[in-house]
Amino acid sequence: MDVFTGRAIRLQEIAPIFRISQEERMAHRSLSELAQKMRNIDIAMLSTHTGSGDIASRPMSNNGEVEYDGTSYYFTFEAAHSVQDISENPKVGLSFQSKGIQVAVEGTATLIRDKAPMREHWSPDLDKWFEDGIDTPDIVMIQVDATRVHYWEGEEDGEVQV
Amino acid sequence: MDVFTGRAIRLQEIAPIFRISQEERMAHRSLSELAQKMRNIDIAMLSTHTGSGDIASRPMSNNGEVEYDGTSYYFTFEAAHSVQDISENPKVGLSFQSKGIQVAVEGTATLIRDKAPMREHWSPDLDKWFEDGIDTPDIVMIQVDATRVHYWEGEEDGEVQV
Repeated sequence: MDVFTGRAIRLQEIAPIFRISQEERMAHRSLSELAQKMRNIDIAMLSTHTGSGDIASRPMSNNGEVEYDGTSYYFTFEAAHSVQDISENPKVGLSFQSKGIQVAVEGTATLIRDKAPMREHWSPDLDKWFEDGIDTPDIVMIQVDATRVHYWEGEEDGEVQV
Repeated sequence: MDVFTGRAIRLQEIAPIFRISQEERMAHRSLSELAQKMRNIDIAMLSTHTGSGDIASRPMSNNGEVEYDGTSYYFTFEAAHSVQDISENPKVGLSFQSKGIQVAVEGTATLIRDKAPMREHWSPDLDKWFEDGIDTPDIVMIQVDATRVHYWEGEEDGEVQV
């Protein structure tokens, strides 16, 4: 009770400053700041529009070592439903979850079959899924460019500029 | 190297049995078995179709104490984008993530404003978000009935009957 009262008094005292700095922080939180909190998230859920109008999601291996800058890359096979879905409607969603933070991305996906960009975004973690690396037959890279990025962290939420 | 060779030999020896039991297991895994692995997941990402054709997602508080049976309940406010989205297109996605398991649900959402079903699905965890509980003005309950449930667990994946 003492702690709570103490905290309430302190908040009242600093309220004008607090309000400004809170607004400033919300307005100016950068993608780079958010990316720091997203580090080491190795799984993203990729959501696509299916031909029947449903929203289908599946986990994709995310290179948690690379700082998120609004564009991310995933690998799959030609026969995957995600490839079919994206070829019909490139609007996708990505969600990232880590202890205490959730990030939802709205974005546009592009299917890439060229080996040069694949090589650039390959991560050794992928070797267990793709026996011959980027030379695995029917491998496809999905590039997702974010159009909106929302985050939730405890009772705070906001949107960052991309 | 020894370990790897040993494992390869053992797998060859048991391959016919392994294949059968793997198929049996895949075919017969029940929603109830999956629900055991989903226990204590307190956050689900709810994905909706937006009016502009995007896929928007946001974290929803999930009652991790209740065993998942294909229907789940979330609380929000009338003014939420999710309510607007669902009223225009009830097809939604849910994704659940826990250590080592991911579950993606395709489903249909219903907006509920009656207090009786809200009371039934209320969890005390929600009190911090809704000051007056189910009597909080403009509270809405979203019921999601699964049409498909997919799961991924390490290198295994499958679909369960709902």
